[in-house]
Amino acid sequence: MGTCVDTCSTTAGRRDGGTRQQRTRDTIDNRYARFYKPCPLVRNFQTQTQTQTPPLDRIEETTAAAVEDLWAKMREEASLDAEQEPILSGYYYTSILSQTSLEGALANHLAVKLCNSSLPIGTLFDIFAGVLGENPGAVRAVKADLRAVKERDPACISYVHCFLGFKGFLAIQAHRVAHELWRRQRKALALLIQNRVSEVFGVDIHPGARIGEGVLLDHATGVVIGETAEVGNDVSILHGVTLGGTGKIGGDRHPKIGDGVLIGAGTCVLGNIRVGAGAKIGACSVVLKEVPARTTAVGNPARLIGGKENPTKLDKMPSFTMDHTSHIAEWSDYVI
Amino acid sequence: MGTCVDTCSTTAGRRDGGTRQQRTRDTIDNRYARFYKPCPLVRNFQTQTQTQTPPLDRIEETTAAAVEDLWAKMREEASLDAEQEPILSGYYYTSILSQTSLEGALANHLAVKLCNSSLPIGTLFDIFAGVLGENPGAVRAVKADLRAVKERDPACISYVHCFLGFKGFLAIQAHRVAHELWRRQRKALALLIQNRVSEVFGVDIHPGARIGEGVLLDHATGVVIGETAEVGNDVSILHGVTLGGTGKIGGDRHPKIGDGVLIGAGTCVLGNIRVGAGAKIGACSVVLKEVPARTTAVGNPARLIGGKENPTKLDKMPSFTMDHTSHIAEWSDYVI
Amino acid sequence: MGTCVDTCSTTAGRRDGGTRQQRTRDTIDNRYARFYKPCPLVRNFQTQTQTQTPPLDRIEETTAAAVEDLWAKMREEASLDAEQEPILSGYYYTSILSQTSLEGALANHLAVKLCNSSLPIGTLFDIFAGVLGENPGAVRAVKADLRAVKERDPACISYVHCFLGFKGFLAIQAHRVAHELWRRQRKALALLIQNRVSEVFGVDIHPGARIGEGVLLDHATGVVIGETAEVGNDVSILHGVTLGGTGKIGGDRHPKIGDGVLIGAGTCVLGNIRVGAGAKIGACSVVLKEVPARTTAVGNPARLIGGKENPTKLDKMPSFTMDHTSHIAEWSDYVI
Repeated sequence: MGTCVDTCSTTAGRRDGGTRQQRTRDTIDNRYARFYKPCPLVRNFQTQTQTQTPPLDRIEETTAAAVEDLWAKMREEASLDAEQEPILSGYYYTSILSQTSLEGALANHLAVKLCNSSLPIGTLFDIFAGVLGENPGAVRAVKADLRAVKERDPACISYVHCFLGFKGFLAIQAHRVAHELWRRQRKALALLIQNRVSEVFGVDIHPGARIGEGVLLDHATGVVIGETAEVGNDVSILHGVTLGGTGKIGGDRHPKIGDGVLIGAGTCVLGNIRVGAGAKIGACSVVLKEVPARTTAVGNPARLIGGKENPTKLDKMPSFTMDHTSHIAEWSDYVI
Repeated sequence: MGTCVDTCSTTAGRRDGGTRQQRTRDTIDNRYARFYKPCPLVRNFQTQTQTQTPPLDRIEETTAAAVEDLWAKMREEASLDAEQEPILSGYYYTSILSQTSLEGALANHLAVKLCNSSLPIGTLFDIFAGVLGENPGAVRAVKADLRAVKERDPACISYVHCFLGFKGFLAIQAHRVAHELWRRQRKALALLIQNRVSEVFGVDIHPGARIGEGVLLDHATGVVIGETAEVGNDVSILHGVTLGGTGKIGGDRHPKIGDGVLIGAGTCVLGNIRVGAGAKIGACSVVLKEVPARTTAVGNPARLIGGKENPTKLDKMPSFTMDHTSHIAEWSDYVI
Repeated sequence: MGTCVDTCSTTAGRRDGGTRQQRTRDTIDNRYARFYKPCPLVRNFQTQTQTQTPPLDRIEETTAAAVEDLWAKMREEASLDAEQEPILSGYYYTSILSQTSLEGALANHLAVKLCNSSLPIGTLFDIFAGVLGENPGAVRAVKADLRAVKERDPACISYVHCFLGFKGFLAIQAHRVAHELWRRQRKALALLIQNRVSEVFGVDIHPGARIGEGVLLDHATGVVIGETAEVGNDVSILHGVTLGGTGKIGGDRHPKIGDGVLIGAGTCVLGNIRVGAGAKIGACSVVLKEVPARTTAVGNPARLIGGKENPTKLDKMPSFTMDHTSHIAEWSDYVI
């Protein structure tokens, strides 16, 4: 998929006369390719959509050193923050500095956030620590998401800032645990985590949903992702987005979101439809039909920028650029 | 109302050539009729809209045996879950198994969810238990809502799953108590419950609003229902829906939603307008004018599928089918 | 700005034939002018947009007597509520009656709402009380917001009702503290408050955002306001509204909302664009371009009522009238 998009975008770049800055695009494209490693959690999705040569590997992501680095970096950030803000030293000590690993800190932090008077913090910690500890891929996914937030959200000032406070980041991590429990048929527990995450973070992800790595849920309030939805790698989704089903019958009824897609705030994507890799969907759109790869769909109902027959192709990965508005000029009926 | 819709839909079925499967529709229609009992809480609304022969009665709903059955079923489900997931046995014991009645369990569960350091759990329990205990109709409404969720939401795996975790279900039950307090002029208490429900569940229902029975608030985050809004029986409302007012003057200023209506995610219905029984409103729509019964309104601003003069009539109850997308083909300007 | 709008609206009133009731408008206009005092927190914004004669002063707002009065009134309301609802007497005592000042009560109430097991209530109280105590303008802003809610929201029955329970009001007050900390380079603490407010109230306001006085966030769930956004005085914003950025590059990237603007539920305003003073934006709109002062923009994408070339000018301040629907007749393609 990565290679495919990379190749296509080069072609597209030539087709539209090379008007866009070549250097910027190449930089983006390289990052584009680098990130397209199939994610174990969404293997089926990858198999379905991956019809080209295998994508480049994220070599640096899998080494123990990289894992070490990010956790060490977070401890460093926490120390600095605690020093500058002594009133929070207890908070940083409990949350980060007294913890011995990224996964331990995450299990503790999620337990603190999600506990209530009938769900003791210890019970929740045991659940999170148990699942994270048994999953070698879990830490890699946590790291990929932390990097995604830090790189794409200009309002994120440090890894520890994201780790401690970003609702979207924390909701996805809790979801990964719930998804693993769901796979093991521990449905009651998985659904309980879903419900607590929905109450505490306002993010409602069914434990059956498959979410890739390097995913950013920005602001996150009101996001709803249904049971049979699939979200690829390196996707950016804003708050208030629904990946919803239709009908009261079970079965495969939710959207499949390709790698590198950007979905703007308040958008509804409904039904078992595919949003192709590298596509962009504008804010407050309603999408009820397939969106081809690397196109831009906007409006209610959504239309393709450039027209249905020959839609304009994006040459930059929208989830990385986070560009929500550059399509205005081509949105013909915009008359303000 | 039920009879009316039933009759009309048969006619409509013939009019459009009987192309839809007759058996499926009849089953739906029977359930349609069966559910149309005027709800005590929205009696005025029923009186206003009910111009035909009286609807069929929900006989089985009012017998003590049926009440007993659902609670027994929930205890059974809780026992099974606790057995399969010993880490949650304390949670199920406190929430369900140690409780002696459905209303007691509900009062306790709402108190657990809504308490904080300045609102002790005991105070809240006394309030909820008091109102639920004095209201013979309360348990019937709780049961109708539990059944609505279980029957219409394919992601709901058991009554106890809904009871313990569904924000929309819990928000409606807390609202019923707040509404009763509001009717008794205990406004400060009613508004306090509204505020806590808005904080904890992200659902903001003014205690003055009248909500029928058998109502599903799916996902529920971001739902806002104003003071003079009325919601009929057997309505399904998705997350992010606003039944809002207009203007700063008090008085009757919010929408009236008929029985069996389905409202998609993110939709705004504003002003004192009527949405007729059995109508469907698509996701992210903006509805500022009356929507006739059994029609489909979609878009921003909303339009009627089939046109204003001769709108297509639905022959199935949209809140039961939960079909959010079958109108695409008729949504003419949808060009993806 | 106030004078400007005042003058213009008189002219506009003549231009459109004086069909609107003169007396009502004059009353509104007087209040319009009365409220246009530059807010210290958004001085830069004021300086940029203020090209006319200086606005009238809010004399009564700055006197100690007025400050005293509102707090005395709140204590009176709390006493009455506690008397009528003895079950809540402890709640009212802790929250209001045992407090010695408005700012003390606010610091305590925010600490109660935002604390959790890793952020003790005492720590949060010290932070809020410290900042509020050092800021002579803080109490004035709190009062202006309380008055805004009470005057514009017909569902608000008393100051103490708003103070104790309105998520939007509490989120703005917590934001004011976070903004002051942000200005003092105490970023970790400011961002922590942002995150807790987003979790507890579902309102995500970056501490860098500049918010004026007399602002109403009605219902508030799902509101997102970005780092470089500016919101003028006397603005009314409904729930689900996004003042969002575009792109992954930092810098000035969020909307600037003028004084007296009304933004309907679920609307997205994206990018560094200006919404002129006294403009109205309909519910569920998508605004990606500048909206001129005192015009009405509605739809997805938003259009100006009256057309781009000669848009209809409002003669009443939309944030005060809270009129969300009177533009229907002019919204030409609305066909229901």
